[in-house]
Amino acid sequence: MVDIATRVWNHKWKIDPIVRSLIDTDFYKLLMCQSIFRNRPDATVTFSLINRSTHIPLADLIDEGELREQLDHIRSLSLSRGESTWLRGNTFYGKRQMFRPDFMEWFEGLRLPPYHLERKGDQYELTFEGKWHEVMLWEIPALAVLMELRGRAVTGGMGKFELQVLYARAMTRVWEKVEALRDIPDLSIADFGTRRRHSFLWQDWCVQAMSEGLGDAFTGTSNCKIAMKREMEAIGTNAHELPMVYAALAKDDESLARAPYDVLEDWHDEHEGNLRIILPDTYGSKGFLDNAPDWLAGWTGIRIDSGDPATAARMAIDWWKARGEDPATKRLIFSDGLDVDKIRELHGQFADKTSISFGWGTLLTNDFRGLVPDDRLAPFSLVCKAVAADGNPTVKLSDNPKKAMGPADEIARYKRVFGVGAQDAQEVVV
Amino acid sequence: MVDIATRVWNHKWKIDPIVRSLIDTDFYKLLMCQSIFRNRPDATVTFSLINRSTHIPLADLIDEGELREQLDHIRSLSLSRGESTWLRGNTFYGKRQMFRPDFMEWFEGLRLPPYHLERKGDQYELTFEGKWHEVMLWEIPALAVLMELRGRAVTGGMGKFELQVLYARAMTRVWEKVEALRDIPDLSIADFGTRRRHSFLWQDWCVQAMSEGLGDAFTGTSNCKIAMKREMEAIGTNAHELPMVYAALAKDDESLARAPYDVLEDWHDEHEGNLRIILPDTYGSKGFLDNAPDWLAGWTGIRIDSGDPATAARMAIDWWKARGEDPATKRLIFSDGLDVDKIRELHGQFADKTSISFGWGTLLTNDFRGLVPDDRLAPFSLVCKAVAADGNPTVKLSDNPKKAMGPADEIARYKRVFGVGAQDAQEVVV
Repeated sequence: MVDIATRVWNHKWKIDPIVRSLIDTDFYKLLMCQSIFRNRPDATVTFSLINRSTHIPLADLIDEGELREQLDHIRSLSLSRGESTWLRGNTFYGKRQMFRPDFMEWFEGLRLPPYHLERKGDQYELTFEGKWHEVMLWEIPALAVLMELRGRAVTGGMGKFELQVLYARAMTRVWEKVEALRDIPDLSIADFGTRRRHSFLWQDWCVQAMSEGLGDAFTGTSNCKIAMKREMEAIGTNAHELPMVYAALAKDDESLARAPYDVLEDWHDEHEGNLRIILPDTYGSKGFLDNAPDWLAGWTGIRIDSGDPATAARMAIDWWKARGEDPATKRLIFSDGLDVDKIRELHGQFADKTSISFGWGTLLTNDFRGLVPDDRLAPFSLVCKAVAADGNPTVKLSDNPKKAMGPADEIARYKRVFGVGAQDAQEVVV
Repeated sequence: MVDIATRVWNHKWKIDPIVRSLIDTDFYKLLMCQSIFRNRPDATVTFSLINRSTHIPLADLIDEGELREQLDHIRSLSLSRGESTWLRGNTFYGKRQMFRPDFMEWFEGLRLPPYHLERKGDQYELTFEGKWHEVMLWEIPALAVLMELRGRAVTGGMGKFELQVLYARAMTRVWEKVEALRDIPDLSIADFGTRRRHSFLWQDWCVQAMSEGLGDAFTGTSNCKIAMKREMEAIGTNAHELPMVYAALAKDDESLARAPYDVLEDWHDEHEGNLRIILPDTYGSKGFLDNAPDWLAGWTGIRIDSGDPATAARMAIDWWKARGEDPATKRLIFSDGLDVDKIRELHGQFADKTSISFGWGTLLTNDFRGLVPDDRLAPFSLVCKAVAADGNPTVKLSDNPKKAMGPADEIARYKRVFGVGAQDAQEVVV
């Protein structure tokens, strides 16, 4: 039986929107947004798209008109009543009313601010300038739109059964990963793959497959819309943009040196338990930990997002010991460039030393490597970062110099202020 | 948008019928049915299910009540108006009105005759006794029902995503076969996989994937329902049951020796061109060809369905030459135990000598080998054969002694009458 109404309804769409909800975004963006809304409501920030994979000519692959349509559609979105109810009424990390009434009232009235889009050679310049807590919400949908439009450019030319087999192969691959993870004892793994996902539907499929295949070992998804839809836990804490913007807003070297701790002091006031997770690598993990105040050692865990993860994990464990903390009561969260082998390896190395979790991103939700000729569906390294705050450029050093960003002179200044010496370069996978 | 009417409609089904149409059967059954209807309308024949894979305990796997429901449902089917129109109006092998008005009128009124079902140990005895042209139509739906019920017994316990990945893997496998066949020049291949298919929907998927992936190299399907639905060619000619029943009806050794030619004489009167295909192996290909009348050498081709296919193909080519026929104008059809490697091998050996085609059966429409634990979805060797005609047992010798059937004393008699000596045994794949 053909449902005529559904067919007609579907044909009414002018476009097939990639992002259909303001909460089709990572949970930690909303946590950070609320923190910024309270602590730095006047900061003006610029976010910018950065394609680290310059061999992917995004402006040749993606039609500018289609890109504008998708971005314009996102600007037409506002929080739905059910989404608002979920954010207000749900428990996150066991806590009710994670989002305060004043924040929710503001969020309910929000539409995303304008974007600036310009073709530059074979790439797009895509920037968002405005109040930090507004423009920061562009990051995830902008990335998701670009990744999916690039995928559509490839799948658009494929036959119906060729397409079905493409997804059959990708599903088989995800399931084989699930099967390879099944026998890891006490595994704790979440989906962190919104930003560079193949598509929303695909991410939703991967999340459900992980849930069915791994049971309780799958702890949830960073994607709020999917967490709501599938009644799962929304997962995430904070990201580099917090120390990066706090640092850019610092008036002198002394306050710059303090900025990464200031931001966590604000966080400390707002969150407890599993939300107190340190992300130490923005300006070098070693210096950050060496100079950290003692109250930070009392936090629940450390997220490891760059550099060699085993080295960083050992550094974290040593730091806890040096500060008189028992690593067995702590948590390490790995979230950089993960795939099954790396997850198994890290689990084998550290599960007997501390609690560990994995935030699995791109190679969960976008592993289409090798599935089409010329690998034109392989994921690539696209980010959308805060590049300036109140007129000052932001800087990220990372534990991997290949992930560093900012003007050269500022990078030099930050290295001096944070005492960062030589670093090992790691290939950026995705 | 949920289509409420469809949901409610679907819930009204008491069972999920496996066979929903009288033409969900092989085309050659209808051609043979018409021939029998004209030439042997009074013969009484018994068809019987034979599970050659005795390690598959069908009666333990399949609930008898469910089996009866499916068989009863098939007895409720009659030819629909559209199906009748298609049989009457379509061209088959380039010919209109392949089915004569008197046959169509009878077929339009047909309901399948009763079945006899009884559990015997861990197997089912399932027999159909009655007018030959009526009971012979049970063969394909009975096999399809048993194969699919056995599959449902396995898939019934699987999770939603586990199921989806099962089909993803099976689809990937079919597509890889399609890709492996793509570069064979002048390939001509058809689906012969109705009887031992995984399911109707799966066969339909395989047929469409072959069509998209192989284009004109895919010549059609033996399944009438799918041929009609997908507007493809219906493929097939005749089978062992014709000489087997003619032989069983023979009154003495002399008419027994003549029976395999008598049946083809009837066929000769009714069909021409690509429908004049000899199936020589029922009582040994060598004797059959040696003793064949010259008019048979004028037929279009030979189907090779048992024994070593290359040996049989060489025998056919030599026979044509010996009878003054040019093999380059002839056609060989391979239809036994085919998979990609065998198809490539036979094509490489014979494509420069004669026209060749492939009728690809079980390993096209039911290659679920290795996809579930204990291989419980692997296809197995189930047949439904004419075992008696007017009270006499039927006999098949085949070119493979493992495919032989009939009482021992009758087999001995047939071997003597047809001059069959030592034979090479071949493993029966499916």
